[in-house]
Amino acid sequence: MEIKDYMQQIGRSARTAARALAKADTHLKNQALLAIADAIERERDVLLAANERDVARARENGLDAALLDRLTLTAKTVASMAEGLRQVANLPDPVGEISEMNYRPSGIQLGKMRVPLGVIGIIYEARPNVTADAAALCLKAGNAAILRGGSEAIESNRAIAACVREGLMQAGLPEAAVQVVETTDRAAVGELITMRDYVDVIVPRGGKGLIERISNEARVPVIKHLDGICHVYIDDKADIEKAIRIADNAKTHRYGTCNTMETLLVAAGIASQVLPELGRIYTDKGVELRCCAATRNLMQQAGFGWLKEATEEDWRTEYLAPVLSIRIVSGLDAAIDHINSYGSQHTDAIVTEDYSRARQFLREVDSASVMVNASTRFADGFEYGLGAEIGISTDKIHARGPVGLHGLTSQKWIVLGDGQVRT
Amino acid sequence: MEIKDYMQQIGRSARTAARALAKADTHLKNQALLAIADAIERERDVLLAANERDVARARENGLDAALLDRLTLTAKTVASMAEGLRQVANLPDPVGEISEMNYRPSGIQLGKMRVPLGVIGIIYEARPNVTADAAALCLKAGNAAILRGGSEAIESNRAIAACVREGLMQAGLPEAAVQVVETTDRAAVGELITMRDYVDVIVPRGGKGLIERISNEARVPVIKHLDGICHVYIDDKADIEKAIRIADNAKTHRYGTCNTMETLLVAAGIASQVLPELGRIYTDKGVELRCCAATRNLMQQAGFGWLKEATEEDWRTEYLAPVLSIRIVSGLDAAIDHINSYGSQHTDAIVTEDYSRARQFLREVDSASVMVNASTRFADGFEYGLGAEIGISTDKIHARGPVGLHGLTSQKWIVLGDGQVRT
Repeated sequence: MEIKDYMQQIGRSARTAARALAKADTHLKNQALLAIADAIERERDVLLAANERDVARARENGLDAALLDRLTLTAKTVASMAEGLRQVANLPDPVGEISEMNYRPSGIQLGKMRVPLGVIGIIYEARPNVTADAAALCLKAGNAAILRGGSEAIESNRAIAACVREGLMQAGLPEAAVQVVETTDRAAVGELITMRDYVDVIVPRGGKGLIERISNEARVPVIKHLDGICHVYIDDKADIEKAIRIADNAKTHRYGTCNTMETLLVAAGIASQVLPELGRIYTDKGVELRCCAATRNLMQQAGFGWLKEATEEDWRTEYLAPVLSIRIVSGLDAAIDHINSYGSQHTDAIVTEDYSRARQFLREVDSASVMVNASTRFADGFEYGLGAEIGISTDKIHARGPVGLHGLTSQKWIVLGDGQVRT
Repeated sequence: MEIKDYMQQIGRSARTAARALAKADTHLKNQALLAIADAIERERDVLLAANERDVARARENGLDAALLDRLTLTAKTVASMAEGLRQVANLPDPVGEISEMNYRPSGIQLGKMRVPLGVIGIIYEARPNVTADAAALCLKAGNAAILRGGSEAIESNRAIAACVREGLMQAGLPEAAVQVVETTDRAAVGELITMRDYVDVIVPRGGKGLIERISNEARVPVIKHLDGICHVYIDDKADIEKAIRIADNAKTHRYGTCNTMETLLVAAGIASQVLPELGRIYTDKGVELRCCAATRNLMQQAGFGWLKEATEEDWRTEYLAPVLSIRIVSGLDAAIDHINSYGSQHTDAIVTEDYSRARQFLREVDSASVMVNASTRFADGFEYGLGAEIGISTDKIHARGPVGLHGLTSQKWIVLGDGQVRT
């Protein structure tokens, strides 16, 4: 009951702050962002000391190396947090943008105005830099934010939150525009995701387990990212040089990102022309290959020995690691069918020079990003020109793919008249 | 368990049909819509006979007059169902629309393509015409539909569904593109709103109770309409003639619609110039007035006697009836504050000739439709040029206000390249 009261109080304050923020002009919001950046740079040593205490405690508690890595702040990451805030200040303000104004036969002039969503709840794990990034995006889009970071990062988050508050106050914006949940009690999350009166949308960031749990229990809309099981399909009308370049880059540019290719599909008619060369590239880079029967045969004949067999489970797996499943398919229809059946509707690419096949792939692949002759690695907010991203959505409602400032807004209808009435 | 199996089977069939529909070209979808319209006209007597059985049973069960009215089909309503289908066939196809294609510095060309959502579940009460309307909109937007109408209308809905299936078959589209849930067991709704693998969005249509229950229990995104507590604010810089015309029309054009004004706000500086005349119009038309203290005093002095006092509850009430609450406010800020506190974020209008106040009202009123010098009654799909509407959303996520074909689609990102890779 105490936690419930505490969270309700945070919710009420956020709702009040959201109204003030929705009115705040661009200059004021940018001033706050720049003041927060300054405070973070000035308080660098305080932030690093708080973070050291978090890291020491996490080490005692036996956190694994990857988590410790994400938790740890350095002088460099503090500087890039401040830099991120300044970049968001430089982005155009999405709020108030008016579009599609047209006269209707009744004489009214109808259009749309972009407006903040209201209050955004962000739930994340051990990364303290999310505190600054998420605060910046929510603020710029005119939303109040309630931030609930992992308990491992509580001291770091409090220290960053103090800088955020200072910046808000300097700009004359309400302190409650960005609130950090100060308790590590898990019940706080349960409250946050069910306070419909006070929270307009939840953005969970973290592992699939966290996101599934939240979206199961939430009573507030959730913008979520689940798997990134991305495919490249090399069509038999592909340009071989482009195919190899893209299939190499999509897998090996970075292994741990959600837009990395996890399954390579190759048309039977071109398999022998591309797979042996790609096989050499992948094995040179230490990528483990898991192959369908046809691929195993082809690669064995090409001198690779018997590669590992892909199981049904492999087609559904996001490795996030130097592992790749490969399947030879009869052609475009089979490739689309594989992608729509096993994929995660994240990002999928075709390599082809054939106009009609490119068109069919674009139309029929039901994913947030669908590409022709480009690496799946392009699917992110920076490459898409969103400036920054709050996450990548694998939902279909509201926002698909990389979510930037626009995804944190909605559009209302506006009507301008001269006294028109319905008759 | 039987109901669960039955609904899962419907869900699986819908998912398969949705894939076929997403590929279906515009001509095929229009052919199906026109064939359904023909079938409905041809089977008019069968439809009316089925409906008579529903109405007779409803009468026996003591359904109230308003519900009976909504349940009853006539030759005229059957004809307008067919006409509605033909109108939807005439609307432009939203699917495949490509927009905002621009080159990025990396050389990729990035844009958006409008695509179907997938499977839409519609849950509605006694109106059988929703079966045809909803089927038409879902089909045109490339979505499969699962329709669950009220048990009172089950025979009418089955008869309409038979016409829909015939039209789909004639066009060579899968019958499962539109499925009517054939059981009146309430557990079917519970399944429908939690089948995340098979349903992409739920649109409940009906009373507030139904919609709240569904949105509380749903595990699938819901596009919902709750209250329509709409306001007109007459500013002291209003043109008096426009103010009276709009305040009259917004209340008295129709009483039972969600975009009807329920509370009239009047700036203190203009109250004595508009309220007595409006009071005469409203009382002549039989509208009951519930007033704040200042309004009561003013109206008493103007010869109306002591009008009924508005309670706190009145400001939060959607009357859907010839009742109006009236409040005199100090000015624009107080009006906006009242609307954002007591309103339902549906549709609100200001009457003013003042440029800056109009701008402030447009920016600060957080409703799906915000109007200047126009009647709130304009907030509907037909007047907004959407051609038809599946409902009016009071949500902020995905779709706000009248929801037409676009609200039943989403946009995916598309990327066209010439072999670009990330470096």
